[in-house]
Amino acid sequence: MSRKGEPDGARPNVWLSRSQLRTWLAFMGVQQRLGYEMNRQLQADNELSLADYDVLNALSGLPGERMQVSALAAQIGWERSRVSHHAKRMQSRGLVQCGVAASDRRATEVRLTRDGRRAIVAAAPGHVDLVRHLFFGGLPKELLVPLSQALEAIYDHIVEHGTLPSPVAEQ
Amino acid sequence: MSRKGEPDGARPNVWLSRSQLRTWLAFMGVQQRLGYEMNRQLQADNELSLADYDVLNALSGLPGERMQVSALAAQIGWERSRVSHHAKRMQSRGLVQCGVAASDRRATEVRLTRDGRRAIVAAAPGHVDLVRHLFFGGLPKELLVPLSQALEAIYDHIVEHGTLPSPVAEQ
Repeated sequence: MSRKGEPDGARPNVWLSRSQLRTWLAFMGVQQRLGYEMNRQLQADNELSLADYDVLNALSGLPGERMQVSALAAQIGWERSRVSHHAKRMQSRGLVQCGVAASDRRATEVRLTRDGRRAIVAAAPGHVDLVRHLFFGGLPKELLVPLSQALEAIYDHIVEHGTLPSPVAEQ
Repeated sequence: MSRKGEPDGARPNVWLSRSQLRTWLAFMGVQQRLGYEMNRQLQADNELSLADYDVLNALSGLPGERMQVSALAAQIGWERSRVSHHAKRMQSRGLVQCGVAASDRRATEVRLTRDGRRAIVAAAPGHVDLVRHLFFGGLPKELLVPLSQALEAIYDHIVEHGTLPSPVAEQ
């Protein structure tokens, strides 16, 4: 399993260059800690989890405020089974409605309810406030443009070389 | 709920500057699509989900290969309840063992099993390969250093201003 003379081991890191590894650990660290803080703030202020917010936010951005489970999973990067289970729990709280898709009767779709819309509208300002302070508050001004360029280049590459359809085709 | 004269609405984006919004959408896009692709590759090649991998990876990086549920949740940025449920499912597959924490008998800890260690060792090379190709393959060389600097500055800021203990204190 060794590559390029690196020692074997459970740590995958040996196969990234030193500067790639630093970058990757920082990316994962930001993602994980920010995820924790976003979840905490939403729970405390809005009785929503970050998972709830991701679902509500994805649905609320669409014209019909509804999406098939598989498309929703692809959009927010979850496993299908997690979307199904989570949507059922959200349905029991009145935030979404699960049902047969109008466009394909073999598929299940998740639809935003009036209460779900109310919840995301109420939660959005506090959530964005946290993002602005905790994410952008730490970013030196001169690094905003290079960060954006780097992330957009990576994003375009993933869209081109990944397995998911491009965002335009999704909707 | 309107701020700075922006119109109300469910879209939180109006409260970030235009360049912050571009950056944030790219960050979320990378996180979500990369998450989807990482999960897909692990499922196909190792019968692990990305969630399994995150848990195994966190545990395998520690001296005792064990962690309390709350510390594990903080480390990987999940809700506590998600860690508990997921660890039980992983226990039924033999990948981890859940039990009373040796250091605090009121707490539950999750411990890597021999099979869990075998699974992460087997999965790591393919996972890192995907990260190297899909994430770093899209990054122009001259943006590697600024990307790293930006993410590390954001990470340090989150550690300083967030609610979680710093990584040193965690372990």
